[in-house]
Amino acid sequence: MNKIEKIARDLFGDAPAARCGGEHGICLNCAKCRADLPDQLWSSSMGVISVLDATNLKADASTTDINNLCELANAHHCAAVCVNSWFSHVLRLRLVHSVKNCTVINFPLGASSLEAVEAEVTSILEHGIEEVDMVQSLSAVKSGLPKLSYDMIHSVASICYKRDAVLKVIVETCVLSEEELIISCLYAKKAGADFVKTSTGFGSAGAKLEDVELMRRCVGPKMGVKASGGIRDRETALAMLEAGANRIGASNVLALL
Amino acid sequence: MNKIEKIARDLFGDAPAARCGGEHGICLNCAKCRADLPDQLWSSSMGVISVLDATNLKADASTTDINNLCELANAHHCAAVCVNSWFSHVLRLRLVHSVKNCTVINFPLGASSLEAVEAEVTSILEHGIEEVDMVQSLSAVKSGLPKLSYDMIHSVASICYKRDAVLKVIVETCVLSEEELIISCLYAKKAGADFVKTSTGFGSAGAKLEDVELMRRCVGPKMGVKASGGIRDRETALAMLEAGANRIGASNVLALL
Repeated sequence: MNKIEKIARDLFGDAPAARCGGEHGICLNCAKCRADLPDQLWSSSMGVISVLDATNLKADASTTDINNLCELANAHHCAAVCVNSWFSHVLRLRLVHSVKNCTVINFPLGASSLEAVEAEVTSILEHGIEEVDMVQSLSAVKSGLPKLSYDMIHSVASICYKRDAVLKVIVETCVLSEEELIISCLYAKKAGADFVKTSTGFGSAGAKLEDVELMRRCVGPKMGVKASGGIRDRETALAMLEAGANRIGASNVLALL
Repeated sequence: MNKIEKIARDLFGDAPAARCGGEHGICLNCAKCRADLPDQLWSSSMGVISVLDATNLKADASTTDINNLCELANAHHCAAVCVNSWFSHVLRLRLVHSVKNCTVINFPLGASSLEAVEAEVTSILEHGIEEVDMVQSLSAVKSGLPKLSYDMIHSVASICYKRDAVLKVIVETCVLSEEELIISCLYAKKAGADFVKTSTGFGSAGAKLEDVELMRRCVGPKMGVKASGGIRDRETALAMLEAGANRIGASNVLALL
């Protein structure tokens, strides 16, 4: 039995075999079953830019910066533009084609209370946000209570589901042990998130190839994996995609062309 | 006319003389007039620890870390313990004497939407938080729209006022020009905040003596000034207090004894 399946069985007990291909082996009885949905895997025919979330989450970003980012994302048909929620109105005004409006919650510390995060996601969805990148409850995970992080993801996923919004769960690999990373991915999948995402970009390290590989093995082919943090050139982005990511978060669109 | 008064007159036009002593000179018509309230100034008889907000805002803080911080703060009668809102329940259970429960909002990026921040402060006040350290809307200030940051502070201050909670506004000096810092302090005072605070501790720099001096000159003697970020020893803390601060934020309580 591989390590991922062992952890899954420790967490969830005996269960029938999974039909969705994750290395957890057993069915996680996910809030959103993906067994019959298409694979969420990157192929080279997609290129890099079509799976790029063009991102600016800096504290000193201005409306001008976000306008410029939107123009670039429109011109090159990026997957989404990801910014802090103060700029939600700019995305709504500026983005065209199929470029999605994306913002972050419980960000970047993953340390807000459940009630604060529920209130935050509810308020941003009222402003037309289509994709939500949420930091999992690192406070819960680092306090040895990952089930409370699961509860938060489950609640937020339910709210997103009703509004047809995509939920990406940022696990923040740089503060997690291997076991905590596996547990975080399994809980995010079970809770009904659409993606697991490596990093906030504000931690001590960003995406690493070995973490992306492990995350893809945990969640299987039916769920999304987003690599983000420190991806500054096309070569690094391609390596992340080949390692199992199907979405990239990066700030410099032109460097990835 | 000094620079602070010039900026105040540019922002607010002609007005009667202030009665509260800020170098803005003119009355700001503050949401909470402090003219007849006692001064908020530190004196050496207070010592350092009684004005210390013992702080842990790290993404990987655990319940054990926060428990230990509360014990230290109780033992040495600190002013408050300041943590992320996931740990609000720990403060409520652990703090004794007059040590206040303090948490942060719109933190650390100062980039959430007005509605998200209003929802966040409402949810944390329901959990018995007595002091709220809020990052001002840096997105608004850096977009050249500081009036929108004022609107956010004013709304949050009104919510705090109803619950008898203290509001400290983190201006995040390291991303502000001198003019932006002066404007931020004047708007925080006018909006009804109780303190201006230098730094989140997550920016490129923490508290600087010259910023603390300027902030005290802006707000006058009747409002609080909190210095935070990079204060790691008693000597630095004392220098900040002598420069005009009357509250200190720091993580290492023992180093400040």
